[in-house]
Amino acid sequence: MAPTHYTRLTLAERPKTTITPSTFKREVVPFDLKPGREEILVKARYVSIDPAMRGWLNDARSYVPPVKIGEVMRAAVIAEVVETGQGSAFKKGDVVFGHFGWTEYAVVKDKHAERLHIQPGMEILDFLGPLGPTGMTAYFGLLDVGKVQAGETLVVSGAAGATGSIVCQIGKKRGAKVYAIAGSADKCAWLEREVGVDRAFNYKSATFYEDFRKQVGYLDVYFDNVGGDILNFMLTRLKQKARIVLCGAIADYNTSKPKGLSSYTNLIAQRAKMEGFIVFDYAKRYPEAQRELASMLKDGSLKRKFHIVKGLENAPDALNLLFSGGNTGKLVVQVSDEGVKTKL
Amino acid sequence: MAPTHYTRLTLAERPKTTITPSTFKREVVPFDLKPGREEILVKARYVSIDPAMRGWLNDARSYVPPVKIGEVMRAAVIAEVVETGQGSAFKKGDVVFGHFGWTEYAVVKDKHAERLHIQPGMEILDFLGPLGPTGMTAYFGLLDVGKVQAGETLVVSGAAGATGSIVCQIGKKRGAKVYAIAGSADKCAWLEREVGVDRAFNYKSATFYEDFRKQVGYLDVYFDNVGGDILNFMLTRLKQKARIVLCGAIADYNTSKPKGLSSYTNLIAQRAKMEGFIVFDYAKRYPEAQRELASMLKDGSLKRKFHIVKGLENAPDALNLLFSGGNTGKLVVQVSDEGVKTKL
Repeated sequence: MAPTHYTRLTLAERPKTTITPSTFKREVVPFDLKPGREEILVKARYVSIDPAMRGWLNDARSYVPPVKIGEVMRAAVIAEVVETGQGSAFKKGDVVFGHFGWTEYAVVKDKHAERLHIQPGMEILDFLGPLGPTGMTAYFGLLDVGKVQAGETLVVSGAAGATGSIVCQIGKKRGAKVYAIAGSADKCAWLEREVGVDRAFNYKSATFYEDFRKQVGYLDVYFDNVGGDILNFMLTRLKQKARIVLCGAIADYNTSKPKGLSSYTNLIAQRAKMEGFIVFDYAKRYPEAQRELASMLKDGSLKRKFHIVKGLENAPDALNLLFSGGNTGKLVVQVSDEGVKTKL
Repeated sequence: MAPTHYTRLTLAERPKTTITPSTFKREVVPFDLKPGREEILVKARYVSIDPAMRGWLNDARSYVPPVKIGEVMRAAVIAEVVETGQGSAFKKGDVVFGHFGWTEYAVVKDKHAERLHIQPGMEILDFLGPLGPTGMTAYFGLLDVGKVQAGETLVVSGAAGATGSIVCQIGKKRGAKVYAIAGSADKCAWLEREVGVDRAFNYKSATFYEDFRKQVGYLDVYFDNVGGDILNFMLTRLKQKARIVLCGAIADYNTSKPKGLSSYTNLIAQRAKMEGFIVFDYAKRYPEAQRELASMLKDGSLKRKFHIVKGLENAPDALNLLFSGGNTGKLVVQVSDEGVKTKL
């Protein structure tokens, strides 16, 4: 039965640095949603919280237009179809993925939703993790941009995060020596014991740089999720023909003026490169990545963790967790716990 | 007839920032040079002055070992064979190219010297310019790293320099729109009128950044010879899939701590890359570049300028000219004016 009202979160003002209580506005609005032709009404179950979302709040030239003031915050979502419009290819009860945003309910076009097929070994949240944009980012960033090869040294920052932890595992599977960087002893322990990296370093340790120099030396591929000082340091640790994969820059997203990379001239001496990418460019090749990651889920070899925050109203705080390092694994907001099976 | 003494310049101390009178030591030493088996005695005519030489003075991990304290300063040289050892493939009077250093005379192995064949349209100095490391740097940097295509927008900094001016011309020949950046009105006039770029910008103009934004907009390839602020600005001017070719960083070579690139996250949003290279890696492919550049010399289409400083003892000052922007075109030191034809 349709509710009388529903909740959504809109962008109230652009944050200059960190997200504050006045960045988003919680709106409880009368329920007036009705799917039209080839449309569906969806009810959100899980909302993805990703570092890239911070970038969508800036009024800057980027790969997607910024979220507008007053607009529902953009986000990847797993939802359930609760009503179908005329001619829709979906049916009530279907579980779908799409960029429906921070809202309990939405009407979307069929073509903007993707039906999920949950197979043995998978859980529904995997479609926001290894089988979703997170996993796609890890796969194409490491293999297509980083071109990691067996025997090479791979370093991954933000390694206990959603993307980082998958990068580590694809790297190991491809035969690389994998060094992980994370921000706590617990994260490092998880990375070494569960995820299976060769060694994890806590960047908050007073001896981090020294330890890294001694125990890793130089690297072939650096998969960077953090930017800032660690990226600048890694520029001094490049082997010849090294590749730096710029995936994200959590350390710099919340600053209005990053300190900047003073070590970039090492790229010249080491004939190395630093390259950015946007996962959406690989949309046509997602099935290739999904096949490999699904097979790792099926055989139980892919480790992943979900950090679940309850309640859509807590999404802004959840987004801040990414920048304070409060999460291990994929961060999601559980909007409601009705009606969706999370495991087979 | 052999002299009783000859002059050479050795590294006396490593400069912290700029080169000073105490960086190099002028030594006049007794002449005791005699070529052995498959060796030659060469007398230097022209010594090349290149930005990369500043890097060879730092005790840092790089693509070649640093010049040692007390060692003759490394440099590319055009010399004349004055004596041949037993079994040498050279003959007296041959004009040769090699990294003989800042010295009037040197004994070198046959395999470290290359006989020059001066064809119509060429002058001997071209073997330090378009047909030497300078031209090879321009060619492989632009085409192999930058992969410039017809119709693309190419921006070149240090454009009135030896490498930059050749990059501009190869870019035009390949059908790119070419924008040059240089440090004086005279240089800009030469670039627009002689070299044939679409437009040249004086980066010392108060309206440089504004002019560039208005008149160029965004770029596909940025061939960077300067680093620093201009590189940081160009990071904000990238089109999707743009390539930044890191050739040199004149603005940063003399600073112990560069300011750093704060705009690097644009590489992510624009799926762009920034890549360094070292021309020596392309040694096997030099003939390919030399064929093209030689044909441009023969048909008179390749413009170049030489800035000649007289006297080996002035080589350190000449090296500083590169960083003060005092030269237009290829900078060389004329060691002696005897005996070498400079034109056919």
